[in-house]
Formats: sequence, structure tokens, C-alpha cells
Amino acid sequence: MIKLFKSGRQKLGSVAVLGYNSAVKFVDKLQSASRKNKSLVCVGLDPDEKLMPKIDLLDFNKAIIDSTKDLVCAYKPNLAFYEALGIPGMQVLMKTIEHVPNEIPIIGDGKRGDIGNTARAYARALFETFKFDAATVNPYLGHDSIEPFLDYADKGIFILCRTSNAGAGDFQDVADKSGKPLYRLVAEKANKWNKRGNIGLVVGATYPEELKTIRKLCPDMPLLIPGIGAQGGDLASAVRNGVDARGKNAIIAVSRQILYASREKDFAQAARQSADQLRKTINELTGA
Amino acid sequence: MIKLFKSGRQKLGSVAVLGYNSAVKFVDKLQSASRKNKSLVCVGLDPDEKLMPKIDLLDFNKAIIDSTKDLVCAYKPNLAFYEALGIPGMQVLMKTIEHVPNEIPIIGDGKRGDIGNTARAYARALFETFKFDAATVNPYLGHDSIEPFLDYADKGIFILCRTSNAGAGDFQDVADKSGKPLYRLVAEKANKWNKRGNIGLVVGATYPEELKTIRKLCPDMPLLIPGIGAQGGDLASAVRNGVDARGKNAIIAVSRQILYASREKDFAQAARQSADQLRKTINELTGA
Repeated sequence: MIKLFKSGRQKLGSVAVLGYNSAVKFVDKLQSASRKNKSLVCVGLDPDEKLMPKIDLLDFNKAIIDSTKDLVCAYKPNLAFYEALGIPGMQVLMKTIEHVPNEIPIIGDGKRGDIGNTARAYARALFETFKFDAATVNPYLGHDSIEPFLDYADKGIFILCRTSNAGAGDFQDVADKSGKPLYRLVAEKANKWNKRGNIGLVVGATYPEELKTIRKLCPDMPLLIPGIGAQGGDLASAVRNGVDARGKNAIIAVSRQILYASREKDFAQAARQSADQLRKTINELTGA
Repeated sequence: MIKLFKSGRQKLGSVAVLGYNSAVKFVDKLQSASRKNKSLVCVGLDPDEKLMPKIDLLDFNKAIIDSTKDLVCAYKPNLAFYEALGIPGMQVLMKTIEHVPNEIPIIGDGKRGDIGNTARAYARALFETFKFDAATVNPYLGHDSIEPFLDYADKGIFILCRTSNAGAGDFQDVADKSGKPLYRLVAEKANKWNKRGNIGLVVGATYPEELKTIRKLCPDMPLLIPGIGAQGGDLASAVRNGVDARGKNAIIAVSRQILYASREKDFAQAARQSADQLRKTINELTGA
């Protein structure tokens, strides 16, 4: 095991944030990849052994990336699937991140949320240790749980607003005395907190009306939109309600439909076809 | 690197939940450790290099555990601090978990929350890969984000209700039309969802009135109470408002005050003294 702290002490302090620098802002990297590949498609790199071809996980991820890297605006690994595999899984995640071409942004989907001191450690984990370009965060703990992420001005921070699952409404629909539901209050706060212009929102394609409302409230924010495909969200309404006035800034995240288009040896080619079909369908909808 | 999936495929399926079995339920293990050690103290194993003595992290954790294991009802590592250190940090976390005596429950403080499919992977990560006895979860995504955790009947699931930080009220205080704030609605839902009796709540000591309200709503649930010490929560009101009718079932989580009682070679002895003092003060308050 690598020794920590005793000699050659690793950084685990507050210096990192202020000293942190990176060449390109997330939003610019996203726009640039989206423009170059003419794509709003984000491939979710979420390994599921039950659905995968019989292949080493890292080789699978690399093959998926190699076969789709000219068709996407971003990749989005969800940390849960790697953590479930323990240390070897986390090693695969780090190698997967290294394999993504530098010009394609990578969104670390971890939905973290903790108090300030701990949120700083999470921000450091996602942005410095794993080197993600963006991260998803959970707003339940309020502004001081999100600020340590926002301090990374060149990173993207996607706050969960309206999630794509069936139980999303349990708390996100709780309406205050003026009738505003929680997800809307989150969107309004996100606007206020967006001093560095690095905030985006997560809004499920399975709730097209809520998506429409949120896009109106936040006309210029990148929206990360899961829920198409396996989860049943309608693509046309997600695209129509999700893009900004220029037909951009929606990130349509799809995982299973692309990753598991085939379980056979042609899986990478099948993934490419599925991603390209999705890309074209979206571009027809936006007129791009 | 260990190869995943190609040969000797690791489990990454749904079988795990149904096939899962462990000897002792979390709540019983907690009560038993609490009774044996006459303690409501939970030591948060949250490494912070700035505050630590100059020692290898794993050696530090082991020394803290060795010097406090007869004084606590639980240990609680927060995953953020280990993730910030990357793979070596996660290795230290796993070795730390192995070092805790089997009769002391370990709460994995990760505050995870994701949609069903992904929540299952997180539950597997925390309960099977890391082998925690309990985990903290975030309720923002609703019931189907928590159910995969609840399926582990013998584990403890602590739902964030009222967190200890300054920004807790940003969303947790949003009151519905009947005037009930969100944290209260979370406590009420937790009662409804508690079919297996394995739910607990996280309530910050920094909000004694909210703690009182929540204890009334959930008279028998274990409450995990951070916020004493560095965060400024008052111990006496936390204990008074947090315990159940028998003066039990409150888990007073303290990290910095115990871990960093000394930065010198006597750190383990200083941690022991600090933990014991806290334990005695709490017991005087409960009359135990």
C-alpha cells in the first residue's frame, strides 16, 4: 500500500483551490466539443455486467470511447458503478478518464452533497484527484455545501434540480406558500449563486413540463438531461424544451441505449451507430 | 491492474440484495456496543492532514481506534476525505474498516442519493464492497433512491433530515402550504418508509429545536447527531433533545475534537481522554 502523509506528504489542505488552474473553462470546452462534433449527445459510462459483452471493463470503456469520440459533446461516468467494484473499479475509472481525448469534457456524476469542510474534500476528489471537468451535486444541504465546488471557476457544477426518477416529486414537488415547488426554488437559487457562470442544472427528460419551466428560468445555463431511452423520457420534447434560444446548451445523457446496443463482438460498432442515430435525430429536432 | 469481468467475473447484479445475509442487525449491534461501552459517542474518522500529527494515515486511524474502542458506540468515516486522496486513500479506508473490532458498528458517511438503478450500485458499494454496517443517504431524489438501501434489512440507513451546517435552511426550511418545513416532511416520510425498522435520521446538534421536533415525530429511531465541538452545537441540548424516552438511541458524532486533541506523539492518549470526557459528560446528562 502507498503510505500517506508520513513522508512526502500529499496535499490535503485548502491551498489547492486558490492554486488551482486549468487552461480551458468547462463551458467553453463543452461548446467547442459540441460544435466540432455537431452533437448534444453525452454518453454515460455506466458499466453493468448483466448487460455488457464478455470483456474486461477498461477495454469495454476504451472501445466505447474510441468508437464514439467524434459523435459526442461529453462523457459522463457515474461513480456508483465503479465504487461498487471497489478499488479495482476506481482504478478502471481513473484509466477511463485518462483515455478520453482532452478536448471532450468529462462530467463526474457523483451527486455529492456535504457540509463545507467535507464538500471541499469532495470537490478536491472530483476536480483534482479524478480530474473531472464537471460534477453533479445535490442541493439538499444548501449553499455552503455547493460553494466549495463553485470556487473552481473553470469547472462545471450541475446542481440536481428535477431528477428523472419516479420518486422525484416526493420532495422536489413540495410547494412553498407562494406555490413554488422545491425544484423551482433550486433553479432560482442556482441563478443567484451563479457568480462565476459555472453552474448548470440536472433536469430529467421524463418531466418535460418541468424542463420547460426550468429552461425559462435559466435561459443560458447548460442543462444536463438524463432520462431518455431506458427511463422512458421522450426525446423530442426533451430537446425542444431543453435547448437554449440558439438550440444549444442541452446535454442529452444516454447510457444503456448506446453502451448495450449489442452484447456481441460488434458492441463498439453498434454503440457508434446508436450514438450517431441519436445525434442525427437530435440535430433534426434543433435544425442544426 | 486487476482485470474486471473478463474472467472470474465479479458480482455486479441484482442477486446480491436477496442473497445478502449478515449475523447481526445494525440496530442491535449499535445498542449492544452502546450498552457494553456505556457510550453514545461516535468517533468520526475524518483525516485532515493540516490537523494531524506527522504519521501515516492508516497508522493514525488504527491508533485512534485502538485507543477509543472501549469508549464508543460506533465509528463514522466520511468517504470524502478518503476519496480526495484517490486510490491510496480508498485503500486506507478499507484497511481502517477491517481494523475496527467486529462488535463496533461502522457508519459509512457518504450521503449518497441517486436514481434506483444507480442507488442499488451505491448500496452495494457501501454495504458489500466496503462492508459498512450503516450508511447516510440524501433524500432529495425521493423514495426510490432510498429503497435499494432499505432492502438491506440488517443495515442501518440514516436519511439526512436536518443537517448541521449554516446553509441547512436554504431548502430544508422550505415550508409547504400547511406550514410544514421540508425537514419535517422528510421525517414523516421516513416513518412511513420504515417497514424493516432500519431507518435512522441525521439531525445536526446546531439546530436543537428542530432536533426536539424530529425526536417527537420519530420517538424510536436512532438519530445520528453531528455538529458538536468544531461546528458549535451545544452538547447538553443535543443530548437532552436527541435521546429517546430511555435515554438511548442518540449517536453523538464527534471528529476533530477527539482526533486532533493533540498533534504530538501523545495524540492517541489525548484522543482517548477527549472521548472519555465526552462520554462521561453525556452519561451525566442522560443519568446513565
